[in-house]
Amino acid sequence: MQHFTKHLLMGSAVVGLSMAASSAAFGDDTLQDVMKARGLTDKDVLAAAKTYVPTGGRDEFLAFSSGGQSGQLIVYGIPSMRILKYIGVFTPEPWQGYGFDDESKAVLAQGRIDGKDIKFGDTHHPAISETNGEYDGQYLFINDKNNPRLAVVDLKDFETKQIVVNPIMKSEHGGAFVSTNTEYVIEASQYPAPFSKKYVPLSKFNQKYRGAVTYWKFNREIGRIEPQNSFTVELPPYSQDLSDFGKGISEGWSFTNSFCTERYIGGIESGRPPFEAGCSQKDTDFLHIINWKKAAELIAAGKGKEVNGMQVLMMKTAIKEGVLFMLPEAKSPHGIDVSPDGRYLIVSGKLDTHASVYDFKKIKALIDKKDFAGKDPYGVPILDLKKSLHTQVEVGLGPLHTQYDSKPCTVYTSIYVDSMVTKWDYCKGKVLDTLHIHYNVGHLMTMEGDSVKPKGKYLVALNKLAIDRFNPVGPLHPQNHQLIDISGDKMELLYDMPVPLGEPHYAVAIAADKLKPKIRYSTGWNSRTDEKSEYRTRPGREKIVKKDGVTHVYGTLIRSHITPEIIEVEQGDTVSVHFTNVERAQDETHGFAINGTNVNLSVEPGKTVSATFVADKAGVFPYYCTEFCSALHLEMQGYLLVRPKGMKASSGKTSQGTVYTEADYSKQVATNVQTQEVIDSVVGYITARNFKDFAPVVSLVEDATDQLNFAADAKKKSEDYAVAKDWQNATLWAQQWFQYQVKTADIGLRAKTYLEEHGAKLVETKD
Amino acid sequence: MQHFTKHLLMGSAVVGLSMAASSAAFGDDTLQDVMKARGLTDKDVLAAAKTYVPTGGRDEFLAFSSGGQSGQLIVYGIPSMRILKYIGVFTPEPWQGYGFDDESKAVLAQGRIDGKDIKFGDTHHPAISETNGEYDGQYLFINDKNNPRLAVVDLKDFETKQIVVNPIMKSEHGGAFVSTNTEYVIEASQYPAPFSKKYVPLSKFNQKYRGAVTYWKFNREIGRIEPQNSFTVELPPYSQDLSDFGKGISEGWSFTNSFCTERYIGGIESGRPPFEAGCSQKDTDFLHIINWKKAAELIAAGKGKEVNGMQVLMMKTAIKEGVLFMLPEAKSPHGIDVSPDGRYLIVSGKLDTHASVYDFKKIKALIDKKDFAGKDPYGVPILDLKKSLHTQVEVGLGPLHTQYDSKPCTVYTSIYVDSMVTKWDYCKGKVLDTLHIHYNVGHLMTMEGDSVKPKGKYLVALNKLAIDRFNPVGPLHPQNHQLIDISGDKMELLYDMPVPLGEPHYAVAIAADKLKPKIRYSTGWNSRTDEKSEYRTRPGREKIVKKDGVTHVYGTLIRSHITPEIIEVEQGDTVSVHFTNVERAQDETHGFAINGTNVNLSVEPGKTVSATFVADKAGVFPYYCTEFCSALHLEMQGYLLVRPKGMKASSGKTSQGTVYTEADYSKQVATNVQTQEVIDSVVGYITARNFKDFAPVVSLVEDATDQLNFAADAKKKSEDYAVAKDWQNATLWAQQWFQYQVKTADIGLRAKTYLEEHGAKLVETKD
Repeated sequence: MQHFTKHLLMGSAVVGLSMAASSAAFGDDTLQDVMKARGLTDKDVLAAAKTYVPTGGRDEFLAFSSGGQSGQLIVYGIPSMRILKYIGVFTPEPWQGYGFDDESKAVLAQGRIDGKDIKFGDTHHPAISETNGEYDGQYLFINDKNNPRLAVVDLKDFETKQIVVNPIMKSEHGGAFVSTNTEYVIEASQYPAPFSKKYVPLSKFNQKYRGAVTYWKFNREIGRIEPQNSFTVELPPYSQDLSDFGKGISEGWSFTNSFCTERYIGGIESGRPPFEAGCSQKDTDFLHIINWKKAAELIAAGKGKEVNGMQVLMMKTAIKEGVLFMLPEAKSPHGIDVSPDGRYLIVSGKLDTHASVYDFKKIKALIDKKDFAGKDPYGVPILDLKKSLHTQVEVGLGPLHTQYDSKPCTVYTSIYVDSMVTKWDYCKGKVLDTLHIHYNVGHLMTMEGDSVKPKGKYLVALNKLAIDRFNPVGPLHPQNHQLIDISGDKMELLYDMPVPLGEPHYAVAIAADKLKPKIRYSTGWNSRTDEKSEYRTRPGREKIVKKDGVTHVYGTLIRSHITPEIIEVEQGDTVSVHFTNVERAQDETHGFAINGTNVNLSVEPGKTVSATFVADKAGVFPYYCTEFCSALHLEMQGYLLVRPKGMKASSGKTSQGTVYTEADYSKQVATNVQTQEVIDSVVGYITARNFKDFAPVVSLVEDATDQLNFAADAKKKSEDYAVAKDWQNATLWAQQWFQYQVKTADIGLRAKTYLEEHGAKLVETKD
Repeated sequence: MQHFTKHLLMGSAVVGLSMAASSAAFGDDTLQDVMKARGLTDKDVLAAAKTYVPTGGRDEFLAFSSGGQSGQLIVYGIPSMRILKYIGVFTPEPWQGYGFDDESKAVLAQGRIDGKDIKFGDTHHPAISETNGEYDGQYLFINDKNNPRLAVVDLKDFETKQIVVNPIMKSEHGGAFVSTNTEYVIEASQYPAPFSKKYVPLSKFNQKYRGAVTYWKFNREIGRIEPQNSFTVELPPYSQDLSDFGKGISEGWSFTNSFCTERYIGGIESGRPPFEAGCSQKDTDFLHIINWKKAAELIAAGKGKEVNGMQVLMMKTAIKEGVLFMLPEAKSPHGIDVSPDGRYLIVSGKLDTHASVYDFKKIKALIDKKDFAGKDPYGVPILDLKKSLHTQVEVGLGPLHTQYDSKPCTVYTSIYVDSMVTKWDYCKGKVLDTLHIHYNVGHLMTMEGDSVKPKGKYLVALNKLAIDRFNPVGPLHPQNHQLIDISGDKMELLYDMPVPLGEPHYAVAIAADKLKPKIRYSTGWNSRTDEKSEYRTRPGREKIVKKDGVTHVYGTLIRSHITPEIIEVEQGDTVSVHFTNVERAQDETHGFAINGTNVNLSVEPGKTVSATFVADKAGVFPYYCTEFCSALHLEMQGYLLVRPKGMKASSGKTSQGTVYTEADYSKQVATNVQTQEVIDSVVGYITARNFKDFAPVVSLVEDATDQLNFAADAKKKSEDYAVAKDWQNATLWAQQWFQYQVKTADIGLRAKTYLEEHGAKLVETKD
């Protein structure tokens, strides 16, 4: 122990070494050496310089990517392409305690299908909330293709807050996309199915199977979707695909494309041609054009029909009232993308070579004039393709998805079969540039590219095959997101990012400075319902109470102990533990896990979370903090004791371990006194400088002050026991006093280093 | 359609554009511009150049990191620090189908605790299999701290193959570590508990609670642990911590350190000092020294005792037979690290400032002479600290874990409280360099650093707090793994990598060229049992059969259809679907998910996987391929029809969609003939060149040949129907023929581009 304190007293002699090292400079020839050794070209170095973010630096944009069948959301930085977070959405994820604590289980339970827990989701299309058509960074919505559901993620804390189940769809692809002020979030079905939950044979496909598009009402005040104020428009049994909301000139309208308007039903096992043949035979499918504002008015006027609890505008009403129209589009398209001003709609077919640019002005005029080219089998008016077109451009084999640049008239289209991206001008209708990607690109993402103000600069190609791009990791490959510099005339490939978990389908990127997430929660916060938890506890108020047959443990977590450290219950008891993390420090998350129980909590500063379980087996079950939260995190532990049914409670007595004497006490106190001197000198260093100008240091000082107060409490206990000559307790409380001193020193040294590295100045004293 | 073919006929006119762009050069002043714009220093650019891996490049090392309470394993490349894969180990993960298909459910079921499914693990310490003390890249082992379990991951396919449950521990920290030829994998308990599964009050802690270390026997031939040939050594109720195996001079021995040898039991809720105080009061804890070779012999000789099915060498036997010894170590240590030659053991205490270097030669001599300093309360001989020491070095506040460099006598120790890494010489006992990290580093990882031949070059600091290092993503922060260049005299910080999911505790890194994972499985492979699946199917042999009350669906997956496309069952049926991916192409994984059922499969090329479920609700449930596997992946779909209980099977008739005529047929055939000409020209381009010199192209040609054969089959069907004047089927099969042509073109174009980009040469023709 003397060493520890001595080292503290010596100050930062050892630390000093590294400070010198970090000021060394590196010349050009050294860079040449590295290039030679690593086989890098000038272009590689340029790409490295364009993407590298030094330690402590910030990325300019944050991308939110779906995780496909991982059921998660992936957050990464641009241009560094470093993944910052996976967010649990439809799939339980233990690191976040998602689906393990009672609070998040309640969110997942909202997503049950006919009472059944669904343990994954096929997330496809994330959408960030918008204000006046611009990304506002407040909320994110993401869909589940497999079990039609929509989730709401709050970007204040990057947590999933709500899941709504679509009661009439059986699969879903065309969401989430938001209207210009996030009044509604769109969700369009994919594979036709009966609205009812009943069996309907495929011989009644044309009559009884249906597509649909749902407009979920979002209440921004409470940050939740309101199913009771949402509605659906019934559609023909085509396979509806992606959607987009209109804006500007097309405000009030939404667009959904489709494939398999042939209404073909495969059956290769019976010798019939497969779906892929029958669903791609016709040259065109239909872009669905919907006047959603009018649909909402009709629903409000009682013209809807309730189906499985959802208000549905039936097709015949939609047709009669002029809500629904069809427009031919090249077959098997994927993606309908409205221009920033809302005037142009770009669509391309995956078996085609050109992109079509429709002009909404022309479309609207045709609708207004009721100038239709025909009707589909369900009576939906069809607009004339040529009369609606602005232009068509040859962009390559298998064009898929188009994203907008900040430069006027400039777009990028992913070309699946050719494995490339084509940059083109949709006003003049000409190709500007192409770039090979690796390989078979699905969706594209520009920065805020589907808002009214795209930010340009970067483009990401979400490639579906990686094949040979990375070190091999077995038959299941990562995906490859390629970052492309679009700031110049020519696209330049900058970076290949493997996606290590999940198969992203679509992503959106927002300027990082629009996000202002929280560092901590208000103390005792239920983050899933956004309110004070009824189970919150303050330090010193921890308790175990039995109520209505449930043993409630109201506990706290702090560096480095769990209160309570011993929990004894009777076999068969239902136990509900509730822990509040009483830390104020940023990043001081604690975990809590009990052996044999599936109890596993992640408790960020301020949060209160619960886990309820039945103590069905008698025995001894250690528990501990799963986060490496301090030097003594392994000692942040406890025991759950489950005594056999009917056995009376134990005395609470414990075995005696090591015994301490007055000499031990005195030795510890001497150490603590020396340690305090060091702390005082560190505090002196900090307070003599303009530390208040550095927000991170202000937080550290706050945290250190907390620890010193705890140390004072322990010191008091220690001294009281010493007065009573209880050397056992006096020594151990003196040790606890020291433990708080170590935590203070840890924080103080971080603060001191920060000030040193950031050029803090001495402030004048007032005397 | 004409466009598509025309474009193909035009060749790569558009593609050519990007080829030109990629040959542009970038001068130094452009780099200066980027540096200025992004605020990069010379040092930043050097770090960027040292870590950037250009598209298609390879990382030099692969790191395998535990995922903490995510229950997963994380694989990333060094120096690029790009995460390549998350591997599901103890936690179900739907992207991999892990815990969703029957085969992987069986692996997770091996990890049940007392019959209970445990849905996560707290993974801590991965270890790669060794041959003669060197990493061999064959297998990886990883532990679960919360529910003492050990998993075996096969590095042939990066999949979890086995989970074994420790039957006598209740928590576990000191594993996995392997012996020099991977004969055994070590697992040491953490928090003491009774070996029995019974309730034992804490008043009997000293007598009835125990620690333990288990030696799991690994059978390399079958790639599985053999519980029946494994054994455990009983230990005192200290909190055992990390372990390491001896090698060279210390071969046959293993080492496990510990904390809380005070045997203190907290109870802050009752006014007792917390565990953290009582467990860190004594100046020293005990390094446990075990002669495991002798222990194994004693077990073989029948000196063990069976406890819960495990052979245990009880403490009194271990003491009597000279198997177990204690050596004082600075209190609350973390990590015991044996030098490459096996002679030195480095240990440091987290509340200390110095690292201790023990000399095994001295230890062995003391043991041989029975020169003991005393006995612990259980009669275990204690060696003298000073007599065992080689040297002690002041390394900083809160030293934790030491890793070895390839340079002689050179090690790196993580310094938790000081937030730095210290480089020092353990032979001469002096500090060489220090480097600040961000922040509070836990474990360290050098390349193959715990093998007999460390590879040097890079060091990774696994920091426990990130705080302000990255763009904020809410109260729960990513971890920060910092890459450090250790090739020179001074350590240089290169890169900050956020860990987006999980809280890694420990990681190991292996030279990438030692790993030779598979690209695909043998056709019909059960990857979890490593044998042909009894449920495999070949194309054309798909069938649905009812056996023993279960409806078995034997199906296949290929671009872009599922066979069968329609499955009809009766409500209440148990359905077991078995799908074989019949692709040969690399990265052509297919997924399979059914609405409403939790059926979600990932089927890599060659694999056969199954999902068994009860069709408990009547209705219509679409299914589809969840992987974007081809241009028409959305059309890779089908329907599960569950008719109500008692209803007789449907006729199988389907609605009629679009009707086709002879004209449609002729038009499609004309397209196909043109397309074939293009394919022939691409084939001509490829075969005229030395494509056989390019392995990836050989694979592509193989795949393209498969597609052309499929096209020929569809063509035949189409023509047969045309002869019969069945224009509906003739047209659709002609479309299917075209679909295979598109897939061929896709592959052919990728091959052509590859040859263009890699300088393929014309080969002479033989005539």
